[in-house]
Amino acid sequence: MFDKFPSDHALIDKAFDDLFPMFRSITGPGLEASIDYFRQFMPLEMEKVPTGSKVFDWTVPPEWHCKRARLWDPDGGLICDTDVSNLSVINYSEPVDASFSLDELEPHLFSLPNLPDAIPYVTSYYKRTWGFCLPHKVRAALKPGNYRVLIESEFKDDGGVPFASCVLPGESDREIMLTSYLCHPSLANNELSGPLALLALYRRISSWERRRYSYRFVLNPETIGSLCFLSRYHEHLKAKLEAGFIVTCIGGDMPRIRYKASRVANSVVDTVMKRLDAGKEASLIPIKYTTFTPVGGSDERQYCAPGFNLPVGQLARSAYDEYDGYHNSLDDKAFMNVAGLVKGIDTIETALRLVEIGGKPVNLSPYGEPQLGKRGLYPNLNADSTRRTSTDMVADGRLRLERMMWILNLSDGHHSVSDMADICECSMEDLRPIIERLEAEKLLSFRAEPVAS
Amino acid sequence: MFDKFPSDHALIDKAFDDLFPMFRSITGPGLEASIDYFRQFMPLEMEKVPTGSKVFDWTVPPEWHCKRARLWDPDGGLICDTDVSNLSVINYSEPVDASFSLDELEPHLFSLPNLPDAIPYVTSYYKRTWGFCLPHKVRAALKPGNYRVLIESEFKDDGGVPFASCVLPGESDREIMLTSYLCHPSLANNELSGPLALLALYRRISSWERRRYSYRFVLNPETIGSLCFLSRYHEHLKAKLEAGFIVTCIGGDMPRIRYKASRVANSVVDTVMKRLDAGKEASLIPIKYTTFTPVGGSDERQYCAPGFNLPVGQLARSAYDEYDGYHNSLDDKAFMNVAGLVKGIDTIETALRLVEIGGKPVNLSPYGEPQLGKRGLYPNLNADSTRRTSTDMVADGRLRLERMMWILNLSDGHHSVSDMADICECSMEDLRPIIERLEAEKLLSFRAEPVAS
Amino acid sequence: MFDKFPSDHALIDKAFDDLFPMFRSITGPGLEASIDYFRQFMPLEMEKVPTGSKVFDWTVPPEWHCKRARLWDPDGGLICDTDVSNLSVINYSEPVDASFSLDELEPHLFSLPNLPDAIPYVTSYYKRTWGFCLPHKVRAALKPGNYRVLIESEFKDDGGVPFASCVLPGESDREIMLTSYLCHPSLANNELSGPLALLALYRRISSWERRRYSYRFVLNPETIGSLCFLSRYHEHLKAKLEAGFIVTCIGGDMPRIRYKASRVANSVVDTVMKRLDAGKEASLIPIKYTTFTPVGGSDERQYCAPGFNLPVGQLARSAYDEYDGYHNSLDDKAFMNVAGLVKGIDTIETALRLVEIGGKPVNLSPYGEPQLGKRGLYPNLNADSTRRTSTDMVADGRLRLERMMWILNLSDGHHSVSDMADICECSMEDLRPIIERLEAEKLLSFRAEPVAS
Repeated sequence: MFDKFPSDHALIDKAFDDLFPMFRSITGPGLEASIDYFRQFMPLEMEKVPTGSKVFDWTVPPEWHCKRARLWDPDGGLICDTDVSNLSVINYSEPVDASFSLDELEPHLFSLPNLPDAIPYVTSYYKRTWGFCLPHKVRAALKPGNYRVLIESEFKDDGGVPFASCVLPGESDREIMLTSYLCHPSLANNELSGPLALLALYRRISSWERRRYSYRFVLNPETIGSLCFLSRYHEHLKAKLEAGFIVTCIGGDMPRIRYKASRVANSVVDTVMKRLDAGKEASLIPIKYTTFTPVGGSDERQYCAPGFNLPVGQLARSAYDEYDGYHNSLDDKAFMNVAGLVKGIDTIETALRLVEIGGKPVNLSPYGEPQLGKRGLYPNLNADSTRRTSTDMVADGRLRLERMMWILNLSDGHHSVSDMADICECSMEDLRPIIERLEAEKLLSFRAEPVAS
Repeated sequence: MFDKFPSDHALIDKAFDDLFPMFRSITGPGLEASIDYFRQFMPLEMEKVPTGSKVFDWTVPPEWHCKRARLWDPDGGLICDTDVSNLSVINYSEPVDASFSLDELEPHLFSLPNLPDAIPYVTSYYKRTWGFCLPHKVRAALKPGNYRVLIESEFKDDGGVPFASCVLPGESDREIMLTSYLCHPSLANNELSGPLALLALYRRISSWERRRYSYRFVLNPETIGSLCFLSRYHEHLKAKLEAGFIVTCIGGDMPRIRYKASRVANSVVDTVMKRLDAGKEASLIPIKYTTFTPVGGSDERQYCAPGFNLPVGQLARSAYDEYDGYHNSLDDKAFMNVAGLVKGIDTIETALRLVEIGGKPVNLSPYGEPQLGKRGLYPNLNADSTRRTSTDMVADGRLRLERMMWILNLSDGHHSVSDMADICECSMEDLRPIIERLEAEKLLSFRAEPVAS
Repeated sequence: MFDKFPSDHALIDKAFDDLFPMFRSITGPGLEASIDYFRQFMPLEMEKVPTGSKVFDWTVPPEWHCKRARLWDPDGGLICDTDVSNLSVINYSEPVDASFSLDELEPHLFSLPNLPDAIPYVTSYYKRTWGFCLPHKVRAALKPGNYRVLIESEFKDDGGVPFASCVLPGESDREIMLTSYLCHPSLANNELSGPLALLALYRRISSWERRRYSYRFVLNPETIGSLCFLSRYHEHLKAKLEAGFIVTCIGGDMPRIRYKASRVANSVVDTVMKRLDAGKEASLIPIKYTTFTPVGGSDERQYCAPGFNLPVGQLARSAYDEYDGYHNSLDDKAFMNVAGLVKGIDTIETALRLVEIGGKPVNLSPYGEPQLGKRGLYPNLNADSTRRTSTDMVADGRLRLERMMWILNLSDGHHSVSDMADICECSMEDLRPIIERLEAEKLLSFRAEPVAS
């Protein structure tokens, strides 16, 4: 399959068009078809938590199957039709087949006076109601009379909430987790940008020459889906998760990507993002680092609840209050911008490559200095002429040797490579070749036990 | 009894007049009668550590019973008489029945040249001596001749040092302790203000609608009395004491109450006092927060000795070097000022009400967010129109909801409500109604185990 | 022996002249003779780690015995001769008996163009080579022709690397360690100044009226010698070492002594040196405190490797890049300066006397205040007249008493005397008499277990 799409751009462009019209919700056939679509490209395994299950403080809702929802005006004109836009009905509307006066209908209509052409996106998952969403300019023109409502929906108690995940194994079973949510119907930036970025990152990371960490990819409906995933995996994550983040609203036109740190604020991803924010490492799109808040945001609110307190942050480019199209039909493919999304993916990959060397390495020869001369890493002759050379071969003012001495000295499993870069006043990228050389010499490992002290 | 005194002012006014003339010391009948007086209003239990007992590094002294002490001048005029002022004799003077020349008498006379009308208060508990205290202007007029001394005192080895305490039980057996000392004879601010404040606070706290903590009240002679109390209760306090403070010199005219923090400096009382000092919470009389010092002060020097290191601070309004009447007869009822004392008691009660919500609460549903919508604490409909409302009923820019999210997220047993107020940039009082609602919903408790993380 | 040298100056002067000509290396007879010389004055025990032993990441090299090395010019003139200067041959040169053209010889010659009169000091311990070191002005005058080389050296596989140590026992078996290296041939500041300072300090500390700590003295060849010492003693040091430092390059003309802190940066020596740097304590020669670095320096690089992480710093006056004579023949007795060295030794002794009271004392009567009055440490009469006196005998504004109260309160085994001095805003020396009085009263000990709290 991958061969068919030589570029991320081409893959995203096609997948977007296929996925956009699917009539998603937090449960039901549109959501499951969407997950199936991603399974063509990633070995996702889908699981389902049955309706009625107790998930922490929540109860898993019934599946919502909505065949079609329509609203006719007194003249028989079709005002709303989910076959035209699946935003037209309140998500999780109960079935209705009846007529109403305009006054009776009014409380069931939703529109945006400030954006008179946009259809808003409205949900009511946990309290039974029904309603239609329509452009304000259509609503304003409605005349008194008899309106016919036909919502062909049904609630199924033998269903459940699905989620899907897969893992790219690495040298360590410590995991870096990338998740996104899948539940909104036809919305672009605030729905498909995240899963599509995950798909592209899966392709890239699977082609890396090596992976120090294992990489987990998760797709789930927002909130209830992450809680269902957590209900089955939170102990695994507590044991194995090194760091992770939600990818959401990663398209659009904001000139920077915002990273919202995890609650613990010291994961390897948190640290790398802080460095990118500070300009200590190069970044295609600038990163803005912000601290965790339980107010607003996405599934990180669940991962960072006090009982879990998992090191999971959130990455977004054009979020919530940063664009007019938030939760309405203006959030389309043009706004999401495939080319810009690919630049965002490039930026995330750069960050993940830093994460790869962002751990706390351990010196495997920690008792005194290792004898570097015999490995060609130190001048064998001690003379005035060698006092500015890093090895018998490298004359460089000793910069490389000095950085190597710092790395060896600080590699006790308690200092990160970021700490070392700060002490050496250089970037982590500057230290990468020295770290890889020391790994090759079996003098350094990211997976050994910390040195007792 | 309480009914007889509808106001604290009336009770304090009457009790002061009854207690002032009693001839107190660190032992003996005047002290025990004073304790008995308080037992009319509080269920204090008195205990006594026998004379000769070893109490840590100290030995409990004999009881001092002083019937009367008098000094006559060569003409038979009565110069000093404890029936007139019980400050007139050095506290713990040995018995004397003899005559002396003025030169012989001089080393046994104490007066204050700078305050020629005042009788100083002098003690010598642990080294036998005798002497008289008198106004300097009286002393200056003494003529040479034969002076008669009659000190009718006695040291009893079958007595002991008494102390008294009682507890107002609360929802938790963790204790907030209020102590004061009782040992000075006729002094007002630096003696009776503290025990009388304790009495009023006992009345108030016993009438609170609920008590999250238990409240312990302790009266003891200073230093040796707190050591005697500690010799019996220090293990109990180490296990159960949440925080406490000595109340002393709490009357007088200083425009603020000074809180001297405990040695650990992070008890719930320390934290509340720091907030009051910083103006983060409202206060009738301003609070000035100062750090602990073992130099000067009162019984906190014992509670905060390194072997105990108990979270006990000290509250004083007009202390030590802040008024002329310190340890002399100018420290009278007028200086103490009953009306001002009641304002001080109001201030302390305000602080204690903050202490009640000053702990580190625990989210009882810490795995993900609890489902707030079903409790009426979150909008059930997710639409543009509900994005600034806290619940289906409350439209408030989401302020209440945002604070609730922070409280739930930080309630891991490691963050205090003060921390939460700082993060929410509001007062603890602003958070009180939300905390009480979450307690009522069984989503929050101040008594649960911290969340593991 | 000591009697023969009433002054340190006389001893150092004589010992320098005896030791300077010895032909030292990191192994071999010149080194062992040097150690033997010190054994006249200190009960050093010598140990030897055999050639071929694995010492952590290193292999112990063969012994180098070099009888003599000479270089003749085409005219038979003697250009280099180790009987004239033992710097003339590369240390660890292999045996050679052959003739070379000037072109062939050139890669084996070392000189310093910027210091044309100096003979450089060059070593190649771990890679076999040979060569001569000579003044650049001599080298520049060499004519083409046939040069004869005779290096009468040999590598012995039945030898080893020696080191030597001894301990002056004190009241505690916790050790303060002073080390220096012995391996350079005829160099003064960067060789003999360190061991000679150690010798003088041994004499002084052995004559102290008391030693709270035990004092360990170590001499070893640099790097491989400290690793050999560590291979036998690192577990002992981990258990018993309170703090220590390398003494190196302690002569010369720099106006200050530089202390390079240990990696842990909080040993009692680190703390004392920081105080001296800050001017909080008096110092004959100013101390400059710098943080640890694994780049450059001496044996502290081994002690502070992450696997050991021992609290060992380094003291130097004129180091490495601070004088022209570094590693060449300009580093002579005149530069080292015996009189200046003695001042450096005075300075180190002052620091060590602070170290003696630099620990974390424990109050032996920690439950409440001890009853100071009965010990003559508190006024027994409490009157206005005693409110500014420290005891019945000492009227001093209570300064001494206040400091004593602080010392007793903070002596929980978690606060150092340096902490106490900072809180009392005085020097550690100001606290010394009070500490010694409390020790004498059995109220304070530097060796008791910390107070539980």
